[in-house]
Amino acid sequence: MILSIAMKNKDSTLRSASLLSHPAIYTDYYELTMAQGYYLSGRQNETACFDYFFRDLPFEGGYAVFAGIGDVLQILEGFYFAEEELQYLAEQGFEDDFLDFLRNLELSVSILAAKEGEIVFPITPLLRVEGPIIEAQILETLLLNILNFETLIATKAKRMKFAAGNRKVLDFGMRRAQGLGSLQASKAAIIGGVEATSNVHASFTHNIPASGTMAHSWVQSFESELDSFRAYAKHFPNETTLLVDTYSTLSSGLPNAITVAKELEETGHRLKGIRLDSGDLAYFSRKARNQLDKAGLEYVKIAASNQLDEHLIQSLLNQGAPIDLFGVGTRLVTGNDTPALDGVYKLAVVNDEPTLKISENVEKITLPGRKRVNRYTDDSDMFLGDGILLDDEDDADSIYHKHYPHKYTNVSGFHTEPLLQPVLKDGTCVIDIPTAQESAGYASARFDQLNAEHKRFDHPHIYKVGISKKLMESRDKLTRKMKS
Amino acid sequence: MILSIAMKNKDSTLRSASLLSHPAIYTDYYELTMAQGYYLSGRQNETACFDYFFRDLPFEGGYAVFAGIGDVLQILEGFYFAEEELQYLAEQGFEDDFLDFLRNLELSVSILAAKEGEIVFPITPLLRVEGPIIEAQILETLLLNILNFETLIATKAKRMKFAAGNRKVLDFGMRRAQGLGSLQASKAAIIGGVEATSNVHASFTHNIPASGTMAHSWVQSFESELDSFRAYAKHFPNETTLLVDTYSTLSSGLPNAITVAKELEETGHRLKGIRLDSGDLAYFSRKARNQLDKAGLEYVKIAASNQLDEHLIQSLLNQGAPIDLFGVGTRLVTGNDTPALDGVYKLAVVNDEPTLKISENVEKITLPGRKRVNRYTDDSDMFLGDGILLDDEDDADSIYHKHYPHKYTNVSGFHTEPLLQPVLKDGTCVIDIPTAQESAGYASARFDQLNAEHKRFDHPHIYKVGISKKLMESRDKLTRKMKS
Repeated sequence: MILSIAMKNKDSTLRSASLLSHPAIYTDYYELTMAQGYYLSGRQNETACFDYFFRDLPFEGGYAVFAGIGDVLQILEGFYFAEEELQYLAEQGFEDDFLDFLRNLELSVSILAAKEGEIVFPITPLLRVEGPIIEAQILETLLLNILNFETLIATKAKRMKFAAGNRKVLDFGMRRAQGLGSLQASKAAIIGGVEATSNVHASFTHNIPASGTMAHSWVQSFESELDSFRAYAKHFPNETTLLVDTYSTLSSGLPNAITVAKELEETGHRLKGIRLDSGDLAYFSRKARNQLDKAGLEYVKIAASNQLDEHLIQSLLNQGAPIDLFGVGTRLVTGNDTPALDGVYKLAVVNDEPTLKISENVEKITLPGRKRVNRYTDDSDMFLGDGILLDDEDDADSIYHKHYPHKYTNVSGFHTEPLLQPVLKDGTCVIDIPTAQESAGYASARFDQLNAEHKRFDHPHIYKVGISKKLMESRDKLTRKMKS
Repeated sequence: MILSIAMKNKDSTLRSASLLSHPAIYTDYYELTMAQGYYLSGRQNETACFDYFFRDLPFEGGYAVFAGIGDVLQILEGFYFAEEELQYLAEQGFEDDFLDFLRNLELSVSILAAKEGEIVFPITPLLRVEGPIIEAQILETLLLNILNFETLIATKAKRMKFAAGNRKVLDFGMRRAQGLGSLQASKAAIIGGVEATSNVHASFTHNIPASGTMAHSWVQSFESELDSFRAYAKHFPNETTLLVDTYSTLSSGLPNAITVAKELEETGHRLKGIRLDSGDLAYFSRKARNQLDKAGLEYVKIAASNQLDEHLIQSLLNQGAPIDLFGVGTRLVTGNDTPALDGVYKLAVVNDEPTLKISENVEKITLPGRKRVNRYTDDSDMFLGDGILLDDEDDADSIYHKHYPHKYTNVSGFHTEPLLQPVLKDGTCVIDIPTAQESAGYASARFDQLNAEHKRFDHPHIYKVGISKKLMESRDKLTRKMKS
C-alpha cells in the first residue's frame, strides 16, 4: 500500500461507547408532539409498522449500497430519555404525565433490515419497524438521518471504486465534509469499498484503516523542498509518499523526489510514492512515470488527488494515466451531485390494520401492510429482481410492476432469498453488529452478483422491483376505500 | 408564530459539555504524521502562522455568512490527548517520545477571527492561527471541517431568509442532513436567519427554538382525517397547525381544517395554521387562502414545504402566493447546489519568516506574512470593501487588486474597522462565546450594511477585496526568490 495504512488489532472492538450523545432527542420536534398526542389520546399501547425505503437512486445510477444500520443499532443500545432531556422538554411545554411515560420508556420495537452492504433498489423496503406506535414514531428521524446519509456515501464510494478497478481509492474528505457528518461519511466510504481514510476519529471509532503523509505546509515549513523531503524520509523511511507540486512538479518536485528515492535506496529503503495534487493529472502522471522509470524507480507509485469523482477517475484511466492510487475528498464525502438520498419512513400498519398514504402523484402512493422482500437470483447467483410480498402470503409465482399490472415477471423458476433479517427484537439487538470492514466485504461480494448493465454510469439498466398480486389487490382495495 | 416554537429560559447555558468527543483526534492522519515529523526533526518549539480563507463564494452568490467559530471555541475547551487515543496512535506506529509529547500537550495557540455572523468574502483571511507549529498543524482539519460547513449553511439560510422577506423560514432538514452534520447545520441555519428548527438535539444543545407539529403518519393513524385533526387540536389547542394533504388538500384536508377551526373558536381558541406539503404550492396556497377567508378564518396562517430553496421561495412570492411561513429542509441543511465551501488553511509564517505557496495557477498563490484585515465603510456604515494588510504596517491609502496592480481603490477617506478580533490567547478563550441567536442578530445587522447589488441571486456585484502595496511587494519579492 502506497500511503501509510495501519490496521489496529483485529480483536479490538469499537472504542467509543456511544457514537451519539442524547440519542432519544436526536429527532424532529414533531415526532415528540405526535408522541404526546398519541399518549394523551390514550393510544400508548397501540402498535404500528413502518417501512423505510427510497424512491430515486442517487447519482443517476443503477443501484445503491445500503449502509448505516450498524451505527443505528449501536446508537439504539444507548436509547433512553435522560433527566436533563426531560427537563428541557418540560421547558418546551410538554406535559408531566407524558414526560413520566418517556422517563420509563424502554425500547421495545422490533426491526427487520437488509444487511449492511446490501445492493439495494428503489421502492424495496429496507427496514420494517414494528412495535408501540410512540416508539416507532420517535425513531423515525434518527433512522432516516443515519440510513439516508450512510447509504448515499457508501453508494458514491462504490461508484468510485468501480471506476478505479484494481487501483486503490482513499478518503481524504474530512476537511470539506458536512461537519460531524464526516464520522459517518468516512465509515460509509469504507463500506462502499474505499481502502482507508484520512479521518483519524473515524479510524479510532470504527476500527478502520487510516492513511496520509504530508501537506504543502510541511514542504513550505522547511528551508527547501529537498530538505523537507529528506526530513520526512528520514523519519518515515518505509512510509514516505512525497507531495511534489508545492513549487513546480516537473522542475522541482519530481527531481527532488528522485534524489531522495536514491538516497533511501542507499540505506536499504524504498520510496513508496509521490503524490500529484494539482494540474492536469493525466499529463503530469505520464511525465512523472517517465521520469521515475528513467531513474530506475519503477516501484515508486503515483498517487493523484484534486476534486476527483467516479467520472474523472474513469476518464483518467481511459486516457491511460499511470495512476496507482486515487485520493478522493469533497465529492466522496458530500455526495456532490446528489447531496441527499430521498429515503422515507411510511406507516404501513396501525393495530394490525393495513394503511397507506394516497397522493395525487401515483408514484407516492405507499404499500400497505406487513411486508417481506424476496431477492431473486439465477443459477449463477446473479440478481434477477426483488419481489415485495405480504408477510403472510406464500411465495408468489409472478411479480408485477407497481403501477402497470400488465407488466409482470414469472419468478417461479428463480432462486429466492429473504432480503430482510431480524436485527432488533423487542428492543434488543439480536445480531453481531458488523464492522465496517465486514460490511465492505459483504458489499463487495454482493456487487459481484449485480449484472454489469446496472453498474455503468450512463443510463444504467433499471433493476426490476415488483409486488405480488395479493399486495397489489390489498393496496387497490384500500385506495378505493379511502377515496370513497 | 404559526408552528409551535418554544424558547428555553434565556439564562440557561449550553446543555452538553462537549459538542464532540475526542476533539484532539478529529483531524486528518497526515496532520499527525507531520506533527511527529516536526517533533523528530527537533522543531517542536518552532512557531507558525496559518490563515483560513475561502476562494469561491458558494451558490454563485455575492457574500457568505461566517459561522462555526463559536463551536470551534467550545470544542477547543476540551482539547487534549486522552490515554485511549494515545494507545490507538501507538498501535498505528507512532513513536513513544512523540506520544509523550502529545500526552503533555496543552493548547497554547492564539487565534484572531472574524465575528460569528460576519458578512465575508473570498481571499479575506477569516482566521489567523499563531503558535507552536505542531499545534497549529494538528488543528487544521477541525477548523476547516467546522468553519467550512457552518459558513456554507449559514449562507444558504441567509439567502432563503432574504428571499422570504418578512415571512418566517423554519428548518425541517434533519432527516436528510448529512448524518451528525445535522447538529451544525441546524445551528448555522439559525445564525443565517432561520427562525426555528425541527432538530430537537440541536435545540437542546445550542439553546435554539424548536418547532413542528404533525406528519402524515399522525393523520393516517386515525380512523379518519377529521378525527386526527380533532385529536391534535384537543391536546394542543393553541399550537395546532394541520397538515392538509394526506388524502386530498381541497376536497378533504381544507374542509376538515375549517371544521376544526370553527370548533376551536367555540372553545375560545384559534387554529394557528395549515401546512401544504405537496402539489403546486402557488395554486394550493391561493385556493386555501380563499377557502379560509370565506370561512372567516383570515387569521389562520398558511405554511408550505416540499423541496424549497431560495429560488422557489422567491418565485412563489413573485407569483403572489399567500404563504406566511416556509419550511425548508434538504436544500438548506446540505447546501444542495454547493455541498461544500472551499475554505483552506495556508501557512503564512514560519518562525517569524513570511512564506507562501506558489502555483502555476496565480489564483492559488497565497499571501505571506502576519496580516490584518480592514473593513471599509461609508458615512452610512455601508460596506465598501476589505483591505488585507501586513500586521505591522500603518493603514494604507490604497488597496490593490490581488493580481492587477493597476486596479486599485483609494480608501483614505473611508471609515475603517478591524475585521479580526482575538478569540483565543495562548490556548485560552478570551471572548464570551456567542449563542446562535446572538450571532444571528449580528449577522442580520451586518447584512443590513451590505449593499443590495451583492444580495441578488443572478450575477451579484463583486465585492472589492484588495491588498496593500506592502503586502503585494512582500509577496512578489518572495515569489521571485522562490522561483530562482
